[in-house]
Amino acid sequence: MELWFKEVYPQGWGVVFKVEKGLCSVRSPYQRIDVLETKSHGRMLVIDGAVMLTELDEFAYHEMLVHVAMFSHPNPKDVLIIGGGDGGTAREVLRHDVKKILLVDIDEEVVNVSKRFFPSLATSFEDERLEVRAEDGIDFVKRASNGSYDVIIVDSTDPVGPAVGLFEKPFFEDCFRVLREDGIMVAQSGSPYFQLDIVAKSHKNMSEVFPIARTYIAGTPSYGGLWSFVIGSKRYLPEEPIREDSSVLEKLKYYNLDVHLGAFKLPTYIKKAIDEAKAS
Amino acid sequence: MELWFKEVYPQGWGVVFKVEKGLCSVRSPYQRIDVLETKSHGRMLVIDGAVMLTELDEFAYHEMLVHVAMFSHPNPKDVLIIGGGDGGTAREVLRHDVKKILLVDIDEEVVNVSKRFFPSLATSFEDERLEVRAEDGIDFVKRASNGSYDVIIVDSTDPVGPAVGLFEKPFFEDCFRVLREDGIMVAQSGSPYFQLDIVAKSHKNMSEVFPIARTYIAGTPSYGGLWSFVIGSKRYLPEEPIREDSSVLEKLKYYNLDVHLGAFKLPTYIKKAIDEAKAS
Repeated sequence: MELWFKEVYPQGWGVVFKVEKGLCSVRSPYQRIDVLETKSHGRMLVIDGAVMLTELDEFAYHEMLVHVAMFSHPNPKDVLIIGGGDGGTAREVLRHDVKKILLVDIDEEVVNVSKRFFPSLATSFEDERLEVRAEDGIDFVKRASNGSYDVIIVDSTDPVGPAVGLFEKPFFEDCFRVLREDGIMVAQSGSPYFQLDIVAKSHKNMSEVFPIARTYIAGTPSYGGLWSFVIGSKRYLPEEPIREDSSVLEKLKYYNLDVHLGAFKLPTYIKKAIDEAKAS
Repeated sequence: MELWFKEVYPQGWGVVFKVEKGLCSVRSPYQRIDVLETKSHGRMLVIDGAVMLTELDEFAYHEMLVHVAMFSHPNPKDVLIIGGGDGGTAREVLRHDVKKILLVDIDEEVVNVSKRFFPSLATSFEDERLEVRAEDGIDFVKRASNGSYDVIIVDSTDPVGPAVGLFEKPFFEDCFRVLREDGIMVAQSGSPYFQLDIVAKSHKNMSEVFPIARTYIAGTPSYGGLWSFVIGSKRYLPEEPIREDSSVLEKLKYYNLDVHLGAFKLPTYIKKAIDEAKAS
């Protein structure tokens, strides 16, 4: 018998993976969570039928989500992660000399599943600098104190259901307020091929809240190829690394200071979509 | 009834596309050629069951294959294309002020199919600067005269079957010989996630033949995300555009001078694989 997992995107295409074994399937109050052992991508975390990460290429997404912002800030000590219950984003932040990370994920079941099946991501939960809270991220930043964080990282699912608000202006405004005066925030902002409207809209929202807003891209095969990230900064230019911490860099597989520079060189059609959204 | 086309890669994963209609299916002496109308990617060219191009994202691949080499050469007049029977690569070359393009594809049936079903690519066949020959590319360069071309572009299928030789040193040596003294060649060199050995081996082969060898990448969703290209140059540094021809640039959707610079900023794991192959 052959077992295949198929994820079909609303546009009418999708990806298939040969499955060696289903390792876990749980239903939390928020979503269905599956772990599959695949032939090609190693273990795979699937939420509500959508691939969230695979052992093969999670490093590309997590490194590019985290280190661009972290290397753009001279001294990030207090970091807030919204989402990211699998621990991969926290693992990357912990490579830096931070004082405290607060990870706010609405679904603690994701944390539990990761601890059981993704030890290479979940090592972060053993670090005492990391605190986890099972709360809604949008509510959390609404109530958080002004100027509490140096960096905020939004590691969310796609903008459907509960995650919609994480791409909107009121959330970015709350993040702006709870960041310190030289703070930086970064969020995944969708596929430049299939969600170009989200890429452009997220950039526009960010640019209306932060004095400096930029979009950058990275190659992430499990998410249909190219992926985009939007970054908002109060003071530092995020397109240029401000530090060169070789003890961090030597541990990374995707990110390096050249890749940081290169990620902001956007293809013409993405630049155009962003410019048009801003002008509208 | 729902019709789906599925391409499964040897690693045990693949892509699926909802098909509105099968438009054409022919068997040439060399391969089976299908054209599908898909819901998500527009028309799709499939050769021996593998996606060759889609209307949605062919621009990314063709622009990045062609313009990096073309903008690295100060005055490319004579261009040789090996493969590329669909006409997309020739279309991009023709945007430049070239004198003559010779396109050598083993299978003239690809040219015929493209003329019928991909008019946006096949416009190039109407340009009198383009000559098409149905021949084996490897044999062709073996017999071609020394110093005949400024730029050679290899637009091949994957290194299985007849295309294997296009990734090997003897072919690169013939290309070196038929290039002028400041000539440049470029070839697609596989997926950095699933064919990292080919990426590294192609670079090593190129670096043993050309004084300047570089690898660059671009995001190409139809080919499983990120794609790599290897470039060999006799004189000019390919990582820096040498011209800024705005009449060409304004027509492009992916390539721009920033993207050119950014494409050479390789993720750490790709750099390592290349360095290890060279040292072996």
